[in-house]
Amino acid sequence: MNLPPSPLGLAGLTLITMWQLYQFALCPFSRKVRLLMGEKGIGYELVREYPWERRDEFLDLNPAGQTPVLIDPDRGLTLIHSSVICEFLEETVDKTPMISGTAPNRAEIRRLTAWFDEQFYMQVVGPLLHERMEKRLIHRTSPDGGILREAMRNANQLLDYIDWLLDQRNWLAGSSLSLADLAAAAHISVADYLGGIDWRGHEQTKRWYSGLKSRPSFRPLLSEKMEIIPPPTHYDKVDF
Amino acid sequence: MNLPPSPLGLAGLTLITMWQLYQFALCPFSRKVRLLMGEKGIGYELVREYPWERRDEFLDLNPAGQTPVLIDPDRGLTLIHSSVICEFLEETVDKTPMISGTAPNRAEIRRLTAWFDEQFYMQVVGPLLHERMEKRLIHRTSPDGGILREAMRNANQLLDYIDWLLDQRNWLAGSSLSLADLAAAAHISVADYLGGIDWRGHEQTKRWYSGLKSRPSFRPLLSEKMEIIPPPTHYDKVDF
Repeated sequence: MNLPPSPLGLAGLTLITMWQLYQFALCPFSRKVRLLMGEKGIGYELVREYPWERRDEFLDLNPAGQTPVLIDPDRGLTLIHSSVICEFLEETVDKTPMISGTAPNRAEIRRLTAWFDEQFYMQVVGPLLHERMEKRLIHRTSPDGGILREAMRNANQLLDYIDWLLDQRNWLAGSSLSLADLAAAAHISVADYLGGIDWRGHEQTKRWYSGLKSRPSFRPLLSEKMEIIPPPTHYDKVDF
Repeated sequence: MNLPPSPLGLAGLTLITMWQLYQFALCPFSRKVRLLMGEKGIGYELVREYPWERRDEFLDLNPAGQTPVLIDPDRGLTLIHSSVICEFLEETVDKTPMISGTAPNRAEIRRLTAWFDEQFYMQVVGPLLHERMEKRLIHRTSPDGGILREAMRNANQLLDYIDWLLDQRNWLAGSSLSLADLAAAAHISVADYLGGIDWRGHEQTKRWYSGLKSRPSFRPLLSEKMEIIPPPTHYDKVDF
């Protein structure tokens, strides 16, 4: 797996950063946190964690056994669960707010973030990860074509809804970039990596996603690969 | 089904309340919202919604098709998803804050709330609802004894973790009552209604839950029954 340099390799950064993020390259929830940290300019080190290995040390950190976990050993802080981490960073780092606006605006940002984290994950990303990554890495079996096709059909339907939102708004939850866009980009990017997105007929979503792909917060994620599972050639291209 | 009086029956309340909550009696996510609204003294009307019926009007309201949805027709507000609703109520109603304290305190409250909404739901409440309610109401089939026993074993393990938390803290997330306790009570109460909780050996959790049961915010929920599925006799008793 091609991950960014290990903590010790981030020579310059280690002096100014304290956060360590436990994650793996294709975890959409970790990607959401990384996009938020990127937009806010918060430095962090990556610690690769495969949650399915159920390492004792990781279970001690998070009894739920899931990535991401964000820790700051110096301050004794352990933040568990992507939405908990995002709310914490919003509350403590003023720069580039991503859950902003009036209370109803904030509710809409959170609704769509939850929609991607639950609906899009359950119907698209989860099945794709199971069939294309877990079966390969853990069970050493082949993916089930029927389940893959169903996940792609679901993706197509859910992208119709995103097209519809983007017909009315510049960004998913309103007039400005928000956590909803980052959550969407995180999940869509993993689905796209795993060959689950057919972009034809989704011009609005494609244009919006192309804009996100060119952001500095997104570039590092798009350059990471799991060698055992190569992405399609269009995956990291801004024009696709 | 014995639900509280319909909106028109809440004679005095309709004058001061505008909120309508779409929910059904055994939806743990709706119960969490109701407990929060009860603690904050926010009036609301109940609208019974069975999400599995997938009513067109409800899907128009919430494309994800899930309860709870909280609307205020007068102000044109539609709030979707229990955690979105809880964050909105915290932000807009100062009385009795339930996600309070320092940023790390707030993260711990949100972590445990998410833990109940995801882990406890997935391992205990979801399977119990499927076996004991959905199979009866929708599929007209009998519950699978193996799945019920597994859900009860899971409940037992997860209650061990709650016992452990309560060995160190007065309330689940720290020294004061928080949304984590309300989320826990919501899920545990549905599991208990469906006969999924064996209280033996969980003295700490039992004492904590008995205290919650006696709160005015909890009493109305405990008095509601689904006639087709009677709860065990201890279900609504503070001493059990």
